[in-house]
Amino acid sequence: MPRMEPSRSRDDGSRRRFLSRFFSLGAAWSAALVACRSKYRPDSDALEPRALGAPVSEYGARSTFEKAKRFVQQDRQVPLEESASHTPLHDTFGIITPSSLHFERHHSGVPQIDPASHTLTIHGLVERPLVFTVDELKRLPSVSRIYFLECSGNSRSEWRSSGATDAQRGHGLTSCSEWTGVPLSMLLKECAVKPEGAWILAEGADPGRHDRSIPIVKAMDDVMVAYGQNGEPLRPEQGYPLRLLVPGWEGNVNVKWLRRVKVLDRPAMSREETSKYTDLMPDGTARQFTFYMEAKSLITRPSAGDKLRGAGAYELTGLAWSGRGAIARVEITTDGGQSWTAAELQTPVLPKAHTRFRWSWKWDGRDALLASRAMDETGYTQPTVQQLVEIRGVNSNYHNNGIQMWKVESNGTVTNGNRT
Amino acid sequence: MPRMEPSRSRDDGSRRRFLSRFFSLGAAWSAALVACRSKYRPDSDALEPRALGAPVSEYGARSTFEKAKRFVQQDRQVPLEESASHTPLHDTFGIITPSSLHFERHHSGVPQIDPASHTLTIHGLVERPLVFTVDELKRLPSVSRIYFLECSGNSRSEWRSSGATDAQRGHGLTSCSEWTGVPLSMLLKECAVKPEGAWILAEGADPGRHDRSIPIVKAMDDVMVAYGQNGEPLRPEQGYPLRLLVPGWEGNVNVKWLRRVKVLDRPAMSREETSKYTDLMPDGTARQFTFYMEAKSLITRPSAGDKLRGAGAYELTGLAWSGRGAIARVEITTDGGQSWTAAELQTPVLPKAHTRFRWSWKWDGRDALLASRAMDETGYTQPTVQQLVEIRGVNSNYHNNGIQMWKVESNGTVTNGNRT
Repeated sequence: MPRMEPSRSRDDGSRRRFLSRFFSLGAAWSAALVACRSKYRPDSDALEPRALGAPVSEYGARSTFEKAKRFVQQDRQVPLEESASHTPLHDTFGIITPSSLHFERHHSGVPQIDPASHTLTIHGLVERPLVFTVDELKRLPSVSRIYFLECSGNSRSEWRSSGATDAQRGHGLTSCSEWTGVPLSMLLKECAVKPEGAWILAEGADPGRHDRSIPIVKAMDDVMVAYGQNGEPLRPEQGYPLRLLVPGWEGNVNVKWLRRVKVLDRPAMSREETSKYTDLMPDGTARQFTFYMEAKSLITRPSAGDKLRGAGAYELTGLAWSGRGAIARVEITTDGGQSWTAAELQTPVLPKAHTRFRWSWKWDGRDALLASRAMDETGYTQPTVQQLVEIRGVNSNYHNNGIQMWKVESNGTVTNGNRT
Repeated sequence: MPRMEPSRSRDDGSRRRFLSRFFSLGAAWSAALVACRSKYRPDSDALEPRALGAPVSEYGARSTFEKAKRFVQQDRQVPLEESASHTPLHDTFGIITPSSLHFERHHSGVPQIDPASHTLTIHGLVERPLVFTVDELKRLPSVSRIYFLECSGNSRSEWRSSGATDAQRGHGLTSCSEWTGVPLSMLLKECAVKPEGAWILAEGADPGRHDRSIPIVKAMDDVMVAYGQNGEPLRPEQGYPLRLLVPGWEGNVNVKWLRRVKVLDRPAMSREETSKYTDLMPDGTARQFTFYMEAKSLITRPSAGDKLRGAGAYELTGLAWSGRGAIARVEITTDGGQSWTAAELQTPVLPKAHTRFRWSWKWDGRDALLASRAMDETGYTQPTVQQLVEIRGVNSNYHNNGIQMWKVESNGTVTNGNRT
């Protein structure tokens, strides 16, 4: 008999937590396993292919059996170049969003940019303006980090009316990737920002020249000029060949197709920070520069549109995130918020990244109102939609991080429960 | 002026380490920045497109300007169905390998499997044999983890002859993904393994029915029945719809297109653990069941095939990994191993996952011999190829984790330096 070496691995807690999931399924799951037992036939050999399969290839694609897709917002008043597409959150696993399914929000379409001729200019209130080619940026010291990116208009459906019909339509304007690029602070230091430099204006090379102002304190913190996404160059919809990555802040300041960073002594007051992307309050005033995406969470399975197969055990799973740092805790309710229980968080829990949570639910087959709520490391707790509306009214389009209720009926139907 | 709230984020050390990279580039980089300074023209406006770009879409693709591809092993004696393709490690960023560029190694091609009819049978020395459909598995409690996967034949070119011409051809049979699935231990407990059950045999649904034996102690540890890869279903080349994921162990035991797990009292002694995938020693005996992929590392940029632009500052970067746990340290030499300096590790450092390392190199323009060496949390240090050969001779095909030298000549040419 071969000798087996004992494993010497010690994985600082995460392995212990992983092992804690290796439980027997137990009585709650027995109904789900009846079918698994009855299917067994000794010595059966399924009709699997015996002819050779496909050869190796240079660049792979997903199975033709898989059909998950982004939901494309169709609005007769706005062309698809000025539209959005939503990640199918109910159809994704773990924390990495497949790049092909990363949400989109464009103001004038996706430009096709040749990286050989594209440049990034840094100028304004600096001693030494610089112009970088993409190749020059790629040669500089780099960083990679896993960060979520969320459109400030995500979940706008939950401010008014009866809410979205499913998780993708309601909340699919958030995604999470491993981003690689150059720290913007390094480039700004090389340019030597003048003492009066207090803000930057970042401008894209899209036809509409999308631009946003960002305080220099954030620009010198964790902002990146990103050229990589999930191991490969940025996708065109994500700003190929260069985008600003502003961790934890609303999507539209993460300027895509980045061509220019100008150092200013005050914000530029561009269209996208005056007419748009401000929060209209009940008294008619608008809150400006509300950059942070606050702590939020969502059960993605089961969610509206699913149909449960009757009483028994189910895994609830979903995503939580916070623009302020790491998620500290996610709690689950099945009774509309009267009682809450802690969910398990997938490790490692990364700051400003999607965090996958899971919870085993034993459904008794009666009406239920499911939801998750997130707490982040600052102590902030995700509010209810009602609490948001009390303060901000219903004029808002942006920054809805309210708790999402899913209503489960005794027949297994799952619908949006926010107005229940 | 708008009021800026101070960030309250506290990221347990990883943020501090991230900030430590925000240094001025300094004198060593000044040559590289001369071109960036001379390109600036005040008030210049690059010729960027003004017509609307492309609309949003349901499923994205990479830019047509990007051409990175897997290297396909062409061997006139073996068809492409029984071949391998290599990840372009020199062309990837961070730690996640793009799914389309994950390495392949198939014995009888990639079968096309309908997930609606595919099943996993668990039987043999168990009290309750079970048959799971893919949907049934997806409903059970799940886990997601980022793990590397490496073919035991990776780097076989470095045992003999002059070595591979570049990093992709030599070492591209390793990749890293976020995998999602069900703990195998949970399924085995549900089947109730009999006391005499000591090994499992995992079998694929590929035409050749690839199979391997695995000790039950590993099967009950961290092995997963995986159905997800980087947020979406497994790619066909990675075993769609189900594969075994055996963290840290050689690729071929991570059985793809998994259809059967049989509990045995001893290993099955299948073809792939007797005739193949054993390590032939100098005395003619073969070491069997050498499962672990030991600590290894590789500088991916610059690497053989690159051409440096002359003396000055360069970022060296590469990957390190260990089948025994987390990487503890990576060191860099520029003088062929006479002196070593610690590289920076990208955080979080995850056990049994690729770990990105980076190091700033000031090249004096003279001949240099670059290499990295990895140490893991068990205290093991990656050996030189010479040290491997002294013990194992040159009959081996598998498990070459020797240090890879890259030779830099004064004209900037980079070649394989293992035989220098």
